[in-house]
Amino acid sequence: MGNANEGSIMTQLEAARAGNITEQMRIVARKEHRSPEFIREKVAQGRIAIPANVNHRTLDPEGVGEGLRTKINVNLGVSGDRADFPEEWEKVRIALENGAESIMDLSNCGKTHPFRSALIEKSTAMIGTVPLYDAIGHLDKPLERITADDFLSVIEAHAVDGVDFMTIHAGLNRRALESFRETGRSLNIVSRGGSLVFAWMQATGNENPFFEHYDRLLEILRRYDVTISLGDALRPGCIDDATDASQISELIELGKLTKRAWDGGVQVIVEGPGHMAIDEIEANVKLQKKLCHGAPFYVLGPLVTDIAPGYDHITSAIGGAVAAASGADFLCYVTPAEHLRLPDANDVLEGVIASKIAAHAADIAKRTPFAREADAKMASARRALDWDAMFEVALDPVKPRRYFESAPPKVEGTCTMCGEMCAVRTVNQALANMEECSDL
Amino acid sequence: MGNANEGSIMTQLEAARAGNITEQMRIVARKEHRSPEFIREKVAQGRIAIPANVNHRTLDPEGVGEGLRTKINVNLGVSGDRADFPEEWEKVRIALENGAESIMDLSNCGKTHPFRSALIEKSTAMIGTVPLYDAIGHLDKPLERITADDFLSVIEAHAVDGVDFMTIHAGLNRRALESFRETGRSLNIVSRGGSLVFAWMQATGNENPFFEHYDRLLEILRRYDVTISLGDALRPGCIDDATDASQISELIELGKLTKRAWDGGVQVIVEGPGHMAIDEIEANVKLQKKLCHGAPFYVLGPLVTDIAPGYDHITSAIGGAVAAASGADFLCYVTPAEHLRLPDANDVLEGVIASKIAAHAADIAKRTPFAREADAKMASARRALDWDAMFEVALDPVKPRRYFESAPPKVEGTCTMCGEMCAVRTVNQALANMEECSDL
Repeated sequence: MGNANEGSIMTQLEAARAGNITEQMRIVARKEHRSPEFIREKVAQGRIAIPANVNHRTLDPEGVGEGLRTKINVNLGVSGDRADFPEEWEKVRIALENGAESIMDLSNCGKTHPFRSALIEKSTAMIGTVPLYDAIGHLDKPLERITADDFLSVIEAHAVDGVDFMTIHAGLNRRALESFRETGRSLNIVSRGGSLVFAWMQATGNENPFFEHYDRLLEILRRYDVTISLGDALRPGCIDDATDASQISELIELGKLTKRAWDGGVQVIVEGPGHMAIDEIEANVKLQKKLCHGAPFYVLGPLVTDIAPGYDHITSAIGGAVAAASGADFLCYVTPAEHLRLPDANDVLEGVIASKIAAHAADIAKRTPFAREADAKMASARRALDWDAMFEVALDPVKPRRYFESAPPKVEGTCTMCGEMCAVRTVNQALANMEECSDL
Repeated sequence: MGNANEGSIMTQLEAARAGNITEQMRIVARKEHRSPEFIREKVAQGRIAIPANVNHRTLDPEGVGEGLRTKINVNLGVSGDRADFPEEWEKVRIALENGAESIMDLSNCGKTHPFRSALIEKSTAMIGTVPLYDAIGHLDKPLERITADDFLSVIEAHAVDGVDFMTIHAGLNRRALESFRETGRSLNIVSRGGSLVFAWMQATGNENPFFEHYDRLLEILRRYDVTISLGDALRPGCIDDATDASQISELIELGKLTKRAWDGGVQVIVEGPGHMAIDEIEANVKLQKKLCHGAPFYVLGPLVTDIAPGYDHITSAIGGAVAAASGADFLCYVTPAEHLRLPDANDVLEGVIASKIAAHAADIAKRTPFAREADAKMASARRALDWDAMFEVALDPVKPRRYFESAPPKVEGTCTMCGEMCAVRTVNQALANMEECSDL
C-alpha cells in the first residue's frame, strides 16, 4: 500500500496535530470500529501510536493505544547460538497466520541486514528492532570501542530499511542509575539492551549515548516516522524487584523522554515489566499512564511468578491479561522456552496463542468494540452442539479439532468429556420435552 | 494417620466450636505456618473447611479457606466413553506428584465402587465425588424413576467409603429456576449435575430432591464428617451468561444452605463459575464471600474467554489466578482437553501445572505466609546462573531441564535464549570489573 505521508515528510503525529487524517488512520479506524476523527485525535495526543515507517510499503497498519484492541508482538531472529533462517521464516509464518500484529527481529549476529530487509518486504505486520543488539553483533568491535556515532548510524540503517518501531534504552541515564546503586535489587538488570548500556557506561565512563544524543536520535526517527519504543532497562527480573526504586526512577525518565519525543514529532510507545505479583499490576499500569502522559504501554509479561520455567507463556498470559485489562495496550509474547533456550517454531505457536488469549480476554474486560462477538458465536455453536462452527470461531482452529477427532464419542453430538452426560444435550432435550408438553 | 474425632462423632466444625483443636487442625496449622488456634477459630466460623472423612485413614489433611494457601483439585474417573483404569491411576500419580491437594473421582459408569475404594485407600490427597453422577450410572434406571431415597443411599455409600467432600446441587430449587425461566440465557445449564437435576425436576414435577431432603442429607454427611461442596448448577457456560439473574439467584440459595449446613454441624465449601470476563471476577468473589457468610470458595475456572478450546488450561489459569488473588480458596483444574474430550495423562499434567501456577501466583498476591520463598530462591539461582538450582525450585523440574538440555549454549553458563548477550552474565561481569577498579 502507498503512504499518505510520503511527500509531506510529516509523521502520523504531526499530521494528526495539523488536523489531517492519514490513510493509515482511516485503515486503523475501520479495523477498530472507531471514527477516523477518534483515531486522529488520540494520535495527536500521543495516546495512540501508528508505527508505520514511510519505507515499509507492505505494512497493513495497526494502532496501538487507548480504546483499541490489545496488540501482540512476536520476537524472533538469529543469534550466535542459532542462525537457522528457514526456521525463522517458519516463525514469521506462524506469527502472521495467527494474528500477531507485530514482529520484532532481534537478530544480533552475522548477516542481519538481508533477513531484516526481506522480513520488512514480506511482513504486513509492523516490524520492530533493538538496534543496539545489531550494533554489538554487526560492528564487531569490543563494546567499549563502539561510539555514540556508531550507535546512531545503526539506528539510521534500520530506519532506512523500513523498521516501524525501535526499542531504545534512553531512560537508563546516570540519574536513574543512582537509585539502582543506592538501593540494589535481587536480580540487578535483566534487560539485554539495558545490561549492554550499563556495561558501556561503566567501561567508558560516559553518559548513556541514547540519552546524551537524544535530540539527534529523534531527528533520525522523525525523518522515517519510526516510533520510539522507550526500553525499560531496569525492569524487574523477579517479583521481588518489581515496583522498586530502580524501576520507578527509570519510568520517571521515560515520562520526560516521552514528552521530548512528542515535541520532536516522534510517536512513542513505553515498555514495561517484566516480573510482577498480580496485585501490583494495575497500579503499575496506572503509574505508567500517568507518568508517561497517556502514551501506549507495551509490556513484556508481566510474569506473575518466577518459579514456572517451561510454562512462562502461562505465567505471562496471566500477567498480560491483567495488565491489558487494566489499560496496557500491547503485549510482547513469551514462549514456553523463555529463560531456557531460543524458542523453536512450536514454542512460537504456543507463545502466540497464549498471548492472543490474554489480549482477547483483556479486550472483553475493557469493552473494546465488538470484542465479545466471537465469544457470542462460540456460545451459539456450543448450544447447538455444532462442532464445525466451534472450531471455526476458535483462536486456533487446528488443535481443538485434532483433540476432538482423537476421541470419537459414543453418543452423537457430544464429546467424550461428558459423553451421554453432556449437560447441553440433556437440557436441550428437557426444554424440548417441556415445549412438547405445553403444545398438547 | 489416625483420626482424632473417631470416637467422639464430632465433625471438625463441631470440635472447633467446642474449643477443641483436632489433630487435623494441628497438621494444617503446621503446613500453613499458622497457629493451631488461628485454624480452630476459622474452622469454627466456617471460614476454613478441613475435608476429612473419618473413614479416610490415609488422608494427609489440608485446610481450604481464608488465610491459607490456595488448593487445587484434579478431576478424573471412568465414563461410558472411556474406562481405562491404568490410565486413571497414571492420572492419580501425576496429581499427587505435582502437589494437587484434592482429587475428584467423577466416575459415572460401570464398577465405580472398587476404583473409588482403592483411590481413597491410596490417596493422601482429599477425595471428592459427585454422587449424582454415580447414581445415574450405577443405579441403571431411567432418570425419572430414580427416587430421592435412591439419591440419598448413593450419598451414604460414598460417605461410608471415606469420600471427604461431595458436590451436591441443592441450590437449583424451584425458586432459583424462576429466574432462569424468566430471564433466559445464552447457554442455559452447563453443569452436568445441574442439567440432570433440572431434567429430573422436569420429568417428575418434584422439587430438587437434595433441597427437599436437605436435613436428612446433612445428617448423613455429619456422621462421617463429609464436607458439603454446594454445586453451582446455574454457573455461566459462556461469558455472556456470567453474573446474571440465574447465577446470582442460585448463589443466594447457596448462602442459605451454607447456614443450614453449619447449623447441622457440616462443613461447607461453595462452588462457583465458570466462564466470566476478567473485570467481573473480583466482584463475584466478594459477592460469594458476603452471601455465603465467608464460606470457602471453590471455582471451576473461571474461563476468561470462550474462544480458546484446546487452551482452556490457560484461559482458566488467568481466571483462577485473578479469582484466588481476590479471595477464592480452591481451584478446580481445567485441562487443554476441556470442551473437547476426556483428558489423557498428558492433558492432566498440563492442567495440574497451569492450576498450580494460578494458585501460587495468587498466594503471592494475597500474601499467604512464605509464598514468596520459592520465588526468592529462583531469583538467587538466576543471579548465580546456577541451572541445577533453578530446576530444583521449579514447579515442574522436568520440562525446563529438557528444554535447556535440548539446546546447548556456546557460552558456558548462559542459555541460547540470549547466549553471549545474557544480561545476567553481562551485569555480573560489569559489577565485578567495578569492584576490581575500586580495589586498586
